[in-house]
Amino acid sequence: MTTEAPINRRIVLAQRPLGAPTSADFRLEESAAPEPAEGEVLLRTLYLSIDPYMRARMSDAPSYAQPVAIDALMIGATVARVEASRSSSLAVGDVVLSMNGWQDYAAVPTKGLMKIDASLAPPSCSLGVLGMPGFTAYVGLLDIGRAKSGETVVVSAATGAVGSVVGQIAKLKGCRAVGIAGGVEKCEYAVSTLGYDACINHYDDDFAEQLAAACPQGVDVYFEGVGGNPLMATLPLLNVDARIALCGIISWLNGANPGAVDTAPQIMRALLNKRAHIQGFVITDHYATRHADFRRDMSQWIREGKIQYREDVIEGLERAPLALIGLLRGDNFGKVVVKVAQG
Amino acid sequence: MTTEAPINRRIVLAQRPLGAPTSADFRLEESAAPEPAEGEVLLRTLYLSIDPYMRARMSDAPSYAQPVAIDALMIGATVARVEASRSSSLAVGDVVLSMNGWQDYAAVPTKGLMKIDASLAPPSCSLGVLGMPGFTAYVGLLDIGRAKSGETVVVSAATGAVGSVVGQIAKLKGCRAVGIAGGVEKCEYAVSTLGYDACINHYDDDFAEQLAAACPQGVDVYFEGVGGNPLMATLPLLNVDARIALCGIISWLNGANPGAVDTAPQIMRALLNKRAHIQGFVITDHYATRHADFRRDMSQWIREGKIQYREDVIEGLERAPLALIGLLRGDNFGKVVVKVAQG
Repeated sequence: MTTEAPINRRIVLAQRPLGAPTSADFRLEESAAPEPAEGEVLLRTLYLSIDPYMRARMSDAPSYAQPVAIDALMIGATVARVEASRSSSLAVGDVVLSMNGWQDYAAVPTKGLMKIDASLAPPSCSLGVLGMPGFTAYVGLLDIGRAKSGETVVVSAATGAVGSVVGQIAKLKGCRAVGIAGGVEKCEYAVSTLGYDACINHYDDDFAEQLAAACPQGVDVYFEGVGGNPLMATLPLLNVDARIALCGIISWLNGANPGAVDTAPQIMRALLNKRAHIQGFVITDHYATRHADFRRDMSQWIREGKIQYREDVIEGLERAPLALIGLLRGDNFGKVVVKVAQG
Repeated sequence: MTTEAPINRRIVLAQRPLGAPTSADFRLEESAAPEPAEGEVLLRTLYLSIDPYMRARMSDAPSYAQPVAIDALMIGATVARVEASRSSSLAVGDVVLSMNGWQDYAAVPTKGLMKIDASLAPPSCSLGVLGMPGFTAYVGLLDIGRAKSGETVVVSAATGAVGSVVGQIAKLKGCRAVGIAGGVEKCEYAVSTLGYDACINHYDDDFAEQLAAACPQGVDVYFEGVGGNPLMATLPLLNVDARIALCGIISWLNGANPGAVDTAPQIMRALLNKRAHIQGFVITDHYATRHADFRRDMSQWIREGKIQYREDVIEGLERAPLALIGLLRGDNFGKVVVKVAQG
């Protein structure tokens, strides 16, 4: 006789959102936690990562990845602890990076799990600065944006999980780093803690003028994760041969502004006038070639105290929908993680 | 005593157009033809090239080049004959490629003039297939678009001065070439004479569906000179790592459609999903590095009968404004030149 299986809470996609997601688009279900098969481990989710890409997966519009099906578990990266092991490669108590999704427990093969070394940084950093967001910053700035010492880099969502790392790597590489963020507090943090040369509040009426003043040598690289106003304010500042590294369009994820003017002509005109370049990229393409470099460099920077990071921790799996809704509104301050269980 | 100088008709910019240019934006003036100084030649304009970039020069919006000043001569490339020479490098009767602008006569230094070899093709071809439009096609397709054998290339304005050459080089390089043009006659010409595998009429209601059907392997390179509907119809067809070579946005040169939806999110989303790339380019940047290659290749292709070309000849300098207005509407069929004087 085994002991009774614990309850597994699971958050599934109840319906596809129209525009901004609401709580009604999610549903909390409960079932018995799964039993690991031979070669598998039972994982207890400690932290769930909340990321902008999740909004795209809730939609069935064409994308680079499959949408989450209606009534299926919401996907997501997790930090989890091994509760039971039927594999020789992981032991009970080991902490791993996994893709449990929005649930308490998962029984999975050990292949694809990465054991986390907690001596370098808290385990949840594997969802942020040492994880996919940090890697997105690294590849986007250095490979897609090809930032060089002395150039000016503008970073949208400058204090977010990705942007905060972009700005700091830009400084480490000798660039001028100018951030764009929503709110005075975020802008102050960007300069005082993250080391941006300047950070402009996109809610200010004279946002575009302030951004221009902060970029006296123009803009060589724009790290784009937002779309909308930050993009429009940056376009006139682009230097010849500027590069725009496009990793997301969070401001447009819920759809375009109805009744808005068509900004495509402005974008294309700027690209033409400045012989500029927009390159979309999807970070999963780059693990094979660049992840080892990233882990080496980022681990060293963290050990040397050169990279700061900040987490916005939401307590409780049941609040994951609110965490995502808030992220899409820009409510968060730093990398959003849901604390699901005590580590 | 010199003989009386001939009359020089000059078309100047009377005012900056609001939206589409009209005849009222131009003014015809007359003055005495200039006298060449020592080292200069007096040129008689034979052909004036009419090109989409001229619309941008009529505006003082930020651009990669200076606008034409109010009351100043409209700029433009010309084929011209030497009428008088005070230089040892050119003789009376020589025919040259020059930048006389919209006028009958110019007195200019010989530096910057290129003598035309009429044995290869009619002199006016130096304004089209052998000139800037042909070079734009060559660089845009091969260097910016990086088209490779077996790939599918979609060409906007497929029968225009640039597009007609893009399609033909694409075929010479082993690509599938799919054109977009306005009207049945242009589409038939694109396939039967230029050798496109297919050409779709963008005035058709089911244009997007037809384009998709013509690109069963998706789109690897989109040669963009138009903006608007052709771009929007091509975006969903892009393959991963697709390249968009952006040399112009003729449909948007008069400004965006007021009241239109914002198509920027669609563009950015497609770039992201397909890891695609838009690169703006300005052909004047590429003369130093690639013009000799172009002249060599294109001369050979013309000698071998591999490149077809078609001119839309408007008679009379005074009709140059109408020629540009018509070009911006898509009225032309082939490279637009104004015949200013008998060669």
